[in-house]
Amino acid sequence: MFAAVGAAHRSLWLRPRQNEEPAVVEIKNERLIADLRRLAEFGKYKTGVDRVAFSPADVASRDWLKERLGEIGLLVKQDRLGNVYGAWPDVDRALLIGSHSDTVPRGGWLDGAMGVIYALEVARAFRESGTGVPIGVDVVAFQDEEGTYLPLLGSKSLAGLLSEGDVGHAHRSDGEALTSAIASAGFSGDPIVADRHRLVGFLEGHIEQGPRLLAAGRKIGVVTGFAGTRRMSIKAEGRADHAGTTPMTMRRDAGRAIFAFASWVDSAFSELSGAETVWNIGSATLKPGAPNVVPSRAELALEFRDGDLGRLERMESAVHDKAAGLQRETGLAVSVDVTTRVPPTTTNSKLAEELAEAAADLGEQPMQLASGAGHDCMIIGQTMPAAMFFVPSIGGRSHDIDEDTAEEDIVLGCRVLARAVERLISNELP
Amino acid sequence: MFAAVGAAHRSLWLRPRQNEEPAVVEIKNERLIADLRRLAEFGKYKTGVDRVAFSPADVASRDWLKERLGEIGLLVKQDRLGNVYGAWPDVDRALLIGSHSDTVPRGGWLDGAMGVIYALEVARAFRESGTGVPIGVDVVAFQDEEGTYLPLLGSKSLAGLLSEGDVGHAHRSDGEALTSAIASAGFSGDPIVADRHRLVGFLEGHIEQGPRLLAAGRKIGVVTGFAGTRRMSIKAEGRADHAGTTPMTMRRDAGRAIFAFASWVDSAFSELSGAETVWNIGSATLKPGAPNVVPSRAELALEFRDGDLGRLERMESAVHDKAAGLQRETGLAVSVDVTTRVPPTTTNSKLAEELAEAAADLGEQPMQLASGAGHDCMIIGQTMPAAMFFVPSIGGRSHDIDEDTAEEDIVLGCRVLARAVERLISNELP
Repeated sequence: MFAAVGAAHRSLWLRPRQNEEPAVVEIKNERLIADLRRLAEFGKYKTGVDRVAFSPADVASRDWLKERLGEIGLLVKQDRLGNVYGAWPDVDRALLIGSHSDTVPRGGWLDGAMGVIYALEVARAFRESGTGVPIGVDVVAFQDEEGTYLPLLGSKSLAGLLSEGDVGHAHRSDGEALTSAIASAGFSGDPIVADRHRLVGFLEGHIEQGPRLLAAGRKIGVVTGFAGTRRMSIKAEGRADHAGTTPMTMRRDAGRAIFAFASWVDSAFSELSGAETVWNIGSATLKPGAPNVVPSRAELALEFRDGDLGRLERMESAVHDKAAGLQRETGLAVSVDVTTRVPPTTTNSKLAEELAEAAADLGEQPMQLASGAGHDCMIIGQTMPAAMFFVPSIGGRSHDIDEDTAEEDIVLGCRVLARAVERLISNELP
Repeated sequence: MFAAVGAAHRSLWLRPRQNEEPAVVEIKNERLIADLRRLAEFGKYKTGVDRVAFSPADVASRDWLKERLGEIGLLVKQDRLGNVYGAWPDVDRALLIGSHSDTVPRGGWLDGAMGVIYALEVARAFRESGTGVPIGVDVVAFQDEEGTYLPLLGSKSLAGLLSEGDVGHAHRSDGEALTSAIASAGFSGDPIVADRHRLVGFLEGHIEQGPRLLAAGRKIGVVTGFAGTRRMSIKAEGRADHAGTTPMTMRRDAGRAIFAFASWVDSAFSELSGAETVWNIGSATLKPGAPNVVPSRAELALEFRDGDLGRLERMESAVHDKAAGLQRETGLAVSVDVTTRVPPTTTNSKLAEELAEAAADLGEQPMQLASGAGHDCMIIGQTMPAAMFFVPSIGGRSHDIDEDTAEEDIVLGCRVLARAVERLISNELP
């Protein structure tokens, strides 16, 4: 995606490691960490955070963030989805930075939140620098990236990709409608839509949520693109019989068919996969689900991801073939219902290169990697140049109360973002 | 279990097929079927019945039955569990007949109910015969054989095998306590416990709930015994990781371990099984259960049944060995929790022989078979001589609204029961 990064550049504004030149924009480490810890108090759950979109903790955390953004002189808006936006005043053009502040249930304290506090701290540092900037720094905290109601809700809205119908139909797994959640949260205000005349691009910092930086011994991962995702449910329909009285040869066991499919997945996908292909069977259901009843219906949720569209096609095709084969062999109805087809995408190569150069400026050799997870950056990239970077997750853990990142890595990530912003608002833009 | 049945005996009381001798005890076919259909109105659900224990339909159906038993001069009692008992008056000894009238949710109209109405019709026919009997005919409708709160609840209580603690701890899968269900139903009265000085034995008629009579072209199956049952849950514990960002080689996927176990079950049990062995994986759960999260916990419910205790032991032993092997191979915690060990039992051979002779008296060659399902008879057999017989289930179906039996087979079963009762109360007893 971008050329290999060479020797570290001299920094004009940031404090270089060798202390040769004075910093103009200065990230304050203690303040950064303190704000991150303060945000984690909203919805604190054991060592993690439970701050799902539209929960009271989410609402309160957004009020807190609006105060912080207002304090540094940004023009603060919030829309009915809860998206919080701080606009740099008195500029015609700005670079947008940020992430999401909602979490999964019983999640970690950094996923999304770190990128939001990075944006707060970087904007604050630029405000404090007193340097007149030709291009401002806008800050965003997206809503419901985690999909409690609708995955990537806030960034889709900002990118103008969300319809009224999407909002009207979205609901939580327990059935609660998004529209009810909006009313309960008390959010109002017109949708905040990205102003393409104003915004020159988007940068997002995030934890890796995987172990690859750790395994490679790197501190900064520059994201080259987002893996495409396919999700499907595989269903078999047989007949419920009494499991004590029905001879084995006379059964139409939907569970057995689904187990055969699950066994096949690992061997077949091992053949079809590339170095970064991943797959998962995340749920399985047998019905009626009693120990003494032969399952009449069985269902698996299968997901796989890869950066190569052709490989995704071959994997999906193999799934359809296998289902048809199982139907022939067992006489059961075996079906495949594809619920998600997200194509692989790439980040903006110019912005990604700036992120890599920023890391190199700070003496860090970045790692290039594709993101297996979806992020707000992937959505915003559909409407403007966008790129993102990762810092290491301890043990590769995320979406869990054990999620954590070394404090020095958190600080380094914020300095890389500040440096990239500095490069972009002072250089010619993409 | 009993000697092969020879040529049909002459019936003294029942109308022989060749019409050689007059009937004394006469089963009235229309009345039998009408009562069965009337009972099926309580909790009617499409073509089946939803009359789970302690439901309003169950309560109402028991009131209806008490009226019918009172009409024919039996002394009617009901206890706090809902068990309904009609005692033949003015006798010191009696033969007990009956079954259960509760159903599974959305079950069939015959499972249990048929045996209760058989008992009503047979007792009624003997009352109407005007013949003085040395031994009376008592009728019982057990409660909750299906285990909505506690499997075989009513028969366990009648057999004196139920403790106060059992009642106190039993609850429905949604958490409702049995004691609350008793209060809601308004049932009261001391437990009805089988009077061993009075009762000489127990006979139960039931649908087969399987396809073996149908496959063999027989109408009456005399049950030689009840298969032993083992139930266990197999659990694996791994780690929840993001399925988009965690490389395949770095996962601790509990679901994959459980799928490997499921595949093994079919091949291993095929080796270990006898002609009548059955097994079932009735439920599977992966947690947290999201498409994009590697399962951290996975669980299967495994059940197997056989008439041979040694085979059950070998199968259970193989399960433990496989779980230990999977734990070694995967490094995950894999455990086996055995929740049920019911030993195989036999029915009383003298009573089973009388049932077979009764069938033969009516010109039917009975089939001997072991029951894969548990029945109230299995419990009552622990406290007095007990036996049971089956009539064919169309398509082998049960526990389903499609459950049915040909009307002529229903009638034949009732006539076999009447003939067996006739033989037993006039012959020397076991």
